[in-house]
Amino acid sequence: MTEKLGEFEIIETYFSPLTKDEKGAFNLADDAAVLEVPKGKSLVITTDTLVEGIHFLTGDLPKNIGAKLLRVSLSDLAAMGSVPAYYNLSIAFKASSITSNWFKEFADALLKDQNQFGITLIGGDTVSTTGPLTLTITAFGVVQAGKVLRRNGARVGDDIWVSGSIGDAALGLKVASGELVNISKINKNFLLSRYFKPIPQTFLGPKLVNHINSAIDISDGLIADLTHICKASNLGAEIQLNSIPLSKATKRVLATRPDYIDLILGGGDDFELLFTADRSFRILQKSLTKELKVSLTRIGNIVGGSSTLIIDKKGKEYPLPKAGYTHF
Amino acid sequence: MTEKLGEFEIIETYFSPLTKDEKGAFNLADDAAVLEVPKGKSLVITTDTLVEGIHFLTGDLPKNIGAKLLRVSLSDLAAMGSVPAYYNLSIAFKASSITSNWFKEFADALLKDQNQFGITLIGGDTVSTTGPLTLTITAFGVVQAGKVLRRNGARVGDDIWVSGSIGDAALGLKVASGELVNISKINKNFLLSRYFKPIPQTFLGPKLVNHINSAIDISDGLIADLTHICKASNLGAEIQLNSIPLSKATKRVLATRPDYIDLILGGGDDFELLFTADRSFRILQKSLTKELKVSLTRIGNIVGGSSTLIIDKKGKEYPLPKAGYTHF
Repeated sequence: MTEKLGEFEIIETYFSPLTKDEKGAFNLADDAAVLEVPKGKSLVITTDTLVEGIHFLTGDLPKNIGAKLLRVSLSDLAAMGSVPAYYNLSIAFKASSITSNWFKEFADALLKDQNQFGITLIGGDTVSTTGPLTLTITAFGVVQAGKVLRRNGARVGDDIWVSGSIGDAALGLKVASGELVNISKINKNFLLSRYFKPIPQTFLGPKLVNHINSAIDISDGLIADLTHICKASNLGAEIQLNSIPLSKATKRVLATRPDYIDLILGGGDDFELLFTADRSFRILQKSLTKELKVSLTRIGNIVGGSSTLIIDKKGKEYPLPKAGYTHF
Repeated sequence: MTEKLGEFEIIETYFSPLTKDEKGAFNLADDAAVLEVPKGKSLVITTDTLVEGIHFLTGDLPKNIGAKLLRVSLSDLAAMGSVPAYYNLSIAFKASSITSNWFKEFADALLKDQNQFGITLIGGDTVSTTGPLTLTITAFGVVQAGKVLRRNGARVGDDIWVSGSIGDAALGLKVASGELVNISKINKNFLLSRYFKPIPQTFLGPKLVNHINSAIDISDGLIADLTHICKASNLGAEIQLNSIPLSKATKRVLATRPDYIDLILGGGDDFELLFTADRSFRILQKSLTKELKVSLTRIGNIVGGSSTLIIDKKGKEYPLPKAGYTHF
C-alpha cells in the first residue's frame, strides 16, 4: 500500500463506526467491551477463523470476505436458535498487502450485513502478521434460557428437514475456480452468489425454538452434518435422494454433469439449516414458509441404529459421498 | 510431525478436557457455546490475537505461548474490574510444524492457568494456515452491572497507582533476545519469567471496583498506557521518576545500564494495573496490599491540561520515552 496505516487509525476510521454508538463497545477505545444479557436469556457464543488461501482465495473481494466472515457465524447462531446481537473481530494482516481502500470496502460490507441481520461490532483486535490474512470472529446471540437448539435431541421417527436448496455453494466454488464453465450467466451468478454470500437462516432459527428436536447448520456438507446430528443423538438417518431440494441452476448443471451429485451431497458451505422434528411440525412448516418466505423440505427420517443411509428413486441404497472438508 | 492430527481429534484429545465438564461448552461438539450471566452482572469481553514472529518467537515453548495468551486476556479482564469466567480459543496452525506433543504441552499450560486464575475454555475453532501460528483468544469476565472500571474516569487530583514493578518484562525480552547478558542467573530467570509468564492482577482488579476512578493494564508501556487514561479522561498526568516501583533485578540492571530507564518507561508487557483514585484510596491500599500480597505504589497525580509529564529527582521534566509498540 502507499500509505502506512496505524493500528489506532484503522480501528478509529473503519471499525469504530461499526459499533453504531453501542454503549458497551466504548467506541473500541477501552480494554474490553461490556454487554448485558437480558433477564431470562442465555448468551450463545460462536468463534470462526477464516484464513486466506484456505477459506477464501487470495484476491477475493474484501466485500465478499467480509460477508462470508459474518454470515458463517450468523449461521452458527441461527443453528442454535439464537437472535444475533454482537460480534468481536480480530484481523491479522500483512501491512504491505492491505490498502486503506481494502479496509473501506471490507467495513462497508460488514455494515451492510450488520443492518440486514441485526448484529453490531463491539470489540476485537488488529495485529500484523507475516503470513496470510487471518480473520477471527466471535459472535454472540441471545436465546430464551434453556431453549437453545442442540445437535443431540433427535428422536426416532423425527422428520428430517432442510431449509433452502442444497449444493449451490459447492457448485459456486467450481464456477469460481473455473472448473464449471458451460453454464448460463444467470445460473453462474446465482451459484457464485450462493458461494460468496450465503444467506444465514437468521430469521428462521429463532422461530424453530420450542418446535423442533435437533438442529445444525450445513457447513461441512449435507451428509456430514446429518451424520453430526446422528452421532450426537446416538441414532441413524434415512433420507431420500429425490427429496433433496435443488435450485433450478443446480438441476440444470446436474442434467449435463450427473456425477456432480456427490459434490452436492458432500460439499459444504450452503449454510442452510438441517433439523429434525416430530410430525406436528408439518403444520407449523406451512405457516413458517409463508411468513419467512423460506422453503422447508422434508428429506427423510431419523431411525434407530447409527448409520446415515441415502435411498435412491429405485429404493436402493445410494453410496455415501466422501466426508466434508477436513483441515488437516 | 510424524502423525497427522485431525481437527476433531485435536479438539477431542487436547481441548475438550479444558472445558472441565462446563455444561455450556457442550464438550466442544456443537455449533456454539452457551453461557448464563448471573443476575445483576455484566459480561466483560476481550479479544487478543498473538502471532508467531510478532508476539512470540518461533520456537518459544508451547507452555510459554499458552501462558502468555491466557494471561494477556486475564489482564484485560482485571483492568475492567471483572472476575474471569470463560474463554474461546482459535488456533490457526501449519500441520507440518506442530506435533501432538506441542498440543499436549500447550493444553497442559492452559489447564494449569485455568486452575490458578479460575477460567474455563468453552469454545473456539481449529483451522490450518500456510503462515505463522496465529492464536486468538476471546475471554469473558463478570462484573457487577454498571460498575466496570474504565479508562475515562480519572479526575484532577487523583493519585496515580501501579501494582507490582515496572519494566521487568521489557528487560526480560532483552535477556531472551540475548542483548542483556551480564547479569546473575537469579535476576536473569526473574526477568525472563516476568516476560514469558506475566502475572495478571486477576484478584486485585475486582477488588478495585467501587473504589477507584479509572484503570488500564500496562501492555503498551507505563507512559503509553498512562497517556491512554489521560486522553480518555481529557486530563494530564504528572509522575515522579523516582517513585516508579522497580524490582531488585531491574535496579541491578539499571546500575550498569542507566540508559535502560527509557526502556522501562516505554516498554510494554508488564501486565500490571495502572489506576487512579482519590485520596481515600490510600487507606484501602494498605489492607489490599496485606490481603492480596500485592505491592501498590503511588507514582504521581492526575492534573489539568493534556500532557503526561515525568519529573526527575531534581524536580526537572524528564523527556518522555518513545511510545509503546505499534503494529504497523
